[in-house]
Amino acid sequence: MPHIALNSAEPGIRGLLRYRPETARPLSELTEVLLRGPGTLARGERELIAAYVSALNDCRYCSSSHSACAAAQLPGGMALVNQVRADPASAPVPAKLKALLAIASAVAHSGHAVTAEQIAAARAAGATDMEIHDTVLIAAAFCMFTRYVDGLATTAPADPALYAAGAQRLVKQGYLMPLAEPTREG
Amino acid sequence: MPHIALNSAEPGIRGLLRYRPETARPLSELTEVLLRGPGTLARGERELIAAYVSALNDCRYCSSSHSACAAAQLPGGMALVNQVRADPASAPVPAKLKALLAIASAVAHSGHAVTAEQIAAARAAGATDMEIHDTVLIAAAFCMFTRYVDGLATTAPADPALYAAGAQRLVKQGYLMPLAEPTREG
Repeated sequence: MPHIALNSAEPGIRGLLRYRPETARPLSELTEVLLRGPGTLARGERELIAAYVSALNDCRYCSSSHSACAAAQLPGGMALVNQVRADPASAPVPAKLKALLAIASAVAHSGHAVTAEQIAAARAAGATDMEIHDTVLIAAAFCMFTRYVDGLATTAPADPALYAAGAQRLVKQGYLMPLAEPTREG
Repeated sequence: MPHIALNSAEPGIRGLLRYRPETARPLSELTEVLLRGPGTLARGERELIAAYVSALNDCRYCSSSHSACAAAQLPGGMALVNQVRADPASAPVPAKLKALLAIASAVAHSGHAVTAEQIAAARAAGATDMEIHDTVLIAAAFCMFTRYVDGLATTAPADPALYAAGAQRLVKQGYLMPLAEPTREG
């Protein structure tokens, strides 16, 4: 049960976005820009970074939701997402993405944990400064979202099919969904 | 030296906001709503929560900047801010704020670290659900900002006078400053 009385039964961050529209707006806009806005990292790769950091932070709602979004947009599907979550170093992803995932893992621990060597490795694998920037900010943002979602003890469905259905909607409509009306599954 | 080539010499998050205006907009709006928007927690109290979490995360730029903003808006000034940063439990702040700072400290560790007992204690001291919500989100947001600022190794001036001057500007103008033109000290 959530720590505070929300105004809907929606799970995870969705209940929080509906509860506080003033903060929902910039949070949704940040997510849209980082995970779907113009950029040279594929949307599926960005979702994968979000899913990986959410899993490191042990957030069931965020890791399930963004794993489903990554799986829906990556050729390797959920099998690849699970490999990355288990061990990104041995997962069959390009060297650049592997290096960015290592940076994301450091960020999840602490900003100070990111090393010049990790940055150099990402750059050697072809990462641009903007890709490194966005990776750090995606990882940092999912240190916020996971703490927001779990710090208020929001609910998280167990059924993977619900996250898969949510991912289909998010992949199509994005994160700037209107919050005024209840969603179909709300 | 920052890990990536920024387009200004501005320190801390200011250089990052200028580098990536697409993410700067929602980040600035989130900060404005949380720390200065309508609400029942005093602006100085909200800045204190931000400063405290930034200090727990060992981020010099964020903790110095928000400590200065808190000091500028709280009767106890920087002496009180320093007491809270050293030990909130023994600092001379109201019981409600003390309970909210305990929640913020848990959030800095992990969302799962927030306990029902901490929530009950805050409520018993008079905290509303919205105040609890905003405390969790402020703490979570400063787990993002500190990782963003330090994960990219931005610079942080040592001189407290610079942060005090910045606080005077922030208290007056807020966080939605235009980023198009260089600031006076940029």
